[in-house]
Amino acid sequence: MQIAIPIYDGVTALDAIGPYEPLSRVPGTDVRFVGVEAGPVRCDTDALSLVADYAVDDVPSPEVIVVPGGGGSRNENGDALLDWIRVAHETTKWTTSVCTGSLLLGKAGILDGLKATSHWIYLDMLREYGAEPTLDRVVEQGKVVTAAGVSSGIDMALRLIQLEAGDDLAQAIQLSVEYDPQPPVDAGSPQKAPDHIVDLVRKVEQSQAGSG
Amino acid sequence: MQIAIPIYDGVTALDAIGPYEPLSRVPGTDVRFVGVEAGPVRCDTDALSLVADYAVDDVPSPEVIVVPGGGGSRNENGDALLDWIRVAHETTKWTTSVCTGSLLLGKAGILDGLKATSHWIYLDMLREYGAEPTLDRVVEQGKVVTAAGVSSGIDMALRLIQLEAGDDLAQAIQLSVEYDPQPPVDAGSPQKAPDHIVDLVRKVEQSQAGSG
Repeated sequence: MQIAIPIYDGVTALDAIGPYEPLSRVPGTDVRFVGVEAGPVRCDTDALSLVADYAVDDVPSPEVIVVPGGGGSRNENGDALLDWIRVAHETTKWTTSVCTGSLLLGKAGILDGLKATSHWIYLDMLREYGAEPTLDRVVEQGKVVTAAGVSSGIDMALRLIQLEAGDDLAQAIQLSVEYDPQPPVDAGSPQKAPDHIVDLVRKVEQSQAGSG
Repeated sequence: MQIAIPIYDGVTALDAIGPYEPLSRVPGTDVRFVGVEAGPVRCDTDALSLVADYAVDDVPSPEVIVVPGGGGSRNENGDALLDWIRVAHETTKWTTSVCTGSLLLGKAGILDGLKATSHWIYLDMLREYGAEPTLDRVVEQGKVVTAAGVSSGIDMALRLIQLEAGDDLAQAIQLSVEYDPQPPVDAGSPQKAPDHIVDLVRKVEQSQAGSG
């Protein structure tokens, strides 16, 4: 199964690497990082580059696409990337996103009339594309699956593996990446975090047109 | 605070990117990916390259080092990398590892007499370096902190942030990366996974001298 992960300047690394790591462990998968052109892209922190081995034109009809978010997804003038998403979606088995990657799916016209999610701060922007924002961590609408902020792509990937190959493989891959989360604090969603933390994160993120 | 993440051919991407993503969001941090030489390194899946902006010689005395694991950590003949870890450790505030990155700390002589962890499959190898293997997800021994397999670096990073800056910042960063795990199956550790899944993963991993 060919899986394409489009990356671009301003991408949030964990949005892409979170799902890549479990998906790449499915036997027989061919995971390809694609850019508008092949070569390095700079992540949103400006501390790291990821290399796209392929240009989008080299990977016209993947069976799965996983669109990560990041600052670049909100400023993206890369029509070539949106065009590729739009065309690839016509023949995918699964069209998926992590974090503000859903805004790119929205811009490509894929979310009209669907429930979808995104990073909680940007959730309302989904309405601009005809989507119905939801706070679920992974939202499944037929072949379109959107995940919440940044780290949620790990959960989404395990869900895709479960849907495609069943519980045994999902469990095996969860165990191989030892995904047994034990965060030392419990503030991973706006429902769980104290109000002053939610306000702080919203303020910082919006002042930076930040990452996610 | 300067944080160095050494990467090398055969590294497991999520081992490095998991902790990078929260740590890079701490105000005032300067996260640097370092290689024996600056430039791209190839991850264990052969589907992705990460770019080290710096050579290890350019970053001699970081305050924090985070050593990721991967197939390359078990075949590593890169004495330059081990020498750098050994010398950098003398002046770090925190010396940390994810997954089989702890085997590199062990080879560098840092774990002698300490409790430590690693990917569950490789845990016993820690004894070769005088360490006492433990199955905890994050093991703190003074300034030496080791984390379990692959995804555990996210939890470790949040713990470091909590130790350095307190609960508020750890919560804020957990919320900014929306780390509210909801895996669809519950097999993230060898204690939780069914026996046949544990056996399967062990067999596959050992036949591949696989990733982790």
